[in-house]
Amino acid sequence: MTKIIGKQSVQFENPPIILGFSSVVGPKEGQGPIGEYFDKIVEDPAWGEPNWELAESKFQKEAAKLAVQNASLAMTDIRYIFGGDLLNQLIASSFGLKDYQVPFFGLYGACSTMAESLQLASMSIDGGFAEYSLAITSSHYCSAEKQFRFPLELGTQRPPTASWTVTGSGAIVLGKQGKGPKITHITTGKIMDYGVTDAMNMGASMAPAAVDTLYNHFKDLGRTPADYDLIATGDLGIVGKALVKTMLYEKGYKLEDNYTDCGLEIFAAVTQDTHAGGSGCACSAVTLTGYFLKKMQSGELNRILIVPTGALLSPVSSNEGESVPGIAHAVVIEN
Amino acid sequence: MTKIIGKQSVQFENPPIILGFSSVVGPKEGQGPIGEYFDKIVEDPAWGEPNWELAESKFQKEAAKLAVQNASLAMTDIRYIFGGDLLNQLIASSFGLKDYQVPFFGLYGACSTMAESLQLASMSIDGGFAEYSLAITSSHYCSAEKQFRFPLELGTQRPPTASWTVTGSGAIVLGKQGKGPKITHITTGKIMDYGVTDAMNMGASMAPAAVDTLYNHFKDLGRTPADYDLIATGDLGIVGKALVKTMLYEKGYKLEDNYTDCGLEIFAAVTQDTHAGGSGCACSAVTLTGYFLKKMQSGELNRILIVPTGALLSPVSSNEGESVPGIAHAVVIEN
Repeated sequence: MTKIIGKQSVQFENPPIILGFSSVVGPKEGQGPIGEYFDKIVEDPAWGEPNWELAESKFQKEAAKLAVQNASLAMTDIRYIFGGDLLNQLIASSFGLKDYQVPFFGLYGACSTMAESLQLASMSIDGGFAEYSLAITSSHYCSAEKQFRFPLELGTQRPPTASWTVTGSGAIVLGKQGKGPKITHITTGKIMDYGVTDAMNMGASMAPAAVDTLYNHFKDLGRTPADYDLIATGDLGIVGKALVKTMLYEKGYKLEDNYTDCGLEIFAAVTQDTHAGGSGCACSAVTLTGYFLKKMQSGELNRILIVPTGALLSPVSSNEGESVPGIAHAVVIEN
Repeated sequence: MTKIIGKQSVQFENPPIILGFSSVVGPKEGQGPIGEYFDKIVEDPAWGEPNWELAESKFQKEAAKLAVQNASLAMTDIRYIFGGDLLNQLIASSFGLKDYQVPFFGLYGACSTMAESLQLASMSIDGGFAEYSLAITSSHYCSAEKQFRFPLELGTQRPPTASWTVTGSGAIVLGKQGKGPKITHITTGKIMDYGVTDAMNMGASMAPAAVDTLYNHFKDLGRTPADYDLIATGDLGIVGKALVKTMLYEKGYKLEDNYTDCGLEIFAAVTQDTHAGGSGCACSAVTLTGYFLKKMQSGELNRILIVPTGALLSPVSSNEGESVPGIAHAVVIEN
């Protein structure tokens, strides 16, 4: 049997099993529409740390610990951690995970990192390189605003197309054997650049990547959107979601009510003043681990397609007038 | 047969084959002791681009193209690119590789990225997820100094422990079948933090990671340093290399004359004023692809252990008083 399917997809021979997962979020996420589902809500976004970066590290450290606990494993059972975050040089991950002393692959896929980590962790299991691997990512509103936009103290006004970075961390333990939902297929995305230069409109910059990955996913697997109980992009928000629907329709696939975007699930945009929706690595990560996977456990969902999306900009590239390329990776999870 | 060896290592069942590789460097590297070996020496470090970031992207774009050409393949044959660089949010890779339209996994392992990309690309081949994968990385003296230390225009004095970031990019095409040296084993490193806080002494901060990975490599495989024609760490320089020898000796393994550091191979420290040695993702990448792999082709070397090393700091973490954790990944290449 070949695992290589079509142009960009893989069908696993021994689908990795989700043995444990966790979601640790900040207060705003806890107050949102899916707040009741999260494993842990931390009321102080700084979590007692002296700076936002160390606070984000603490979210990741806690999420890793909980996911391994929930899988009834010890950290020493984990062969590899596949993780990353939005901060320059991945300091949230490096400082959050260093104490665990697990072989580490640092990843950067911007807000698509949860899918990137799940894809590579899945390969490590199906390929026979690990018994157990951990996929993890985090983001933090305060560290992200400080790094990518403006220090919070400035009180800078945000345009309606702007999104709100989710504070939190999501982690998933994959294993070769055991009980739980399985990762059956993946579609790895290409870097797509439609020339959007507005760094305050991430939805528009990432939508072409989501469309390309979704299109190739459906083509590679010979599936349609109707084959899934749920299709969820990562953090396109209101603007990007509408673009995806239109662009994918033009390519022959119609997304119906089973399509949502994690950025629209996690916050109540109007009452929580989050404008276009939630974003950040943790947006798709905790919506998956906090909400969707629990709906799979309860049997409400049985086959989902999750497509975290990332904007590959840096303040330097934007200041130099460059566009904002996007990337999106798709992961199929089945009961 | 199990591929999982010891605590941190993998023995490939069908060792991925190095089908093509490339090295593209700047003028200082071209003038160095191994200058004659590089595929391409670019005399203008800006390479006609308006900024250092785009210049670095161009090095990576060219290295990818050459490696694929040298493998007698087309870019459309490549299933995955595993790549990364030192710049915030990996912009050198994103902008350098986007035109190729190949599914992309962005990696950050600081200056260990060439090993990280080779390890994951190897898994993609041995695991049956790809026929051909490309591993790539880059660094650029001018973009790195600007981002991590001081703009060149300031003419800031550098301490003797400081290293000199290599300008260039190295790329390797791995395949399932064909002729070439093979990647037989890998040892994936853990994040090691001995509390070094001097960001101008990367060698000292990364040495414990190199020691830990080397130690576990020898233990896992039941080998000793004498089993290799060459052992090369990534960019520890004079300071780090001496530490590795001492620390590993204390752990029971004596490194002899077959041990070198890429940072000491690529520059003539005294005449080229590079202080502790070369560094950056490209240091181990182009020393491997430009020099060691050519010595394997000629039969001068037959079994090498390459251990690129990375310092997981960011200017933010250093400014906040944090230590500089390190990481190192080992790759065995055999004729």
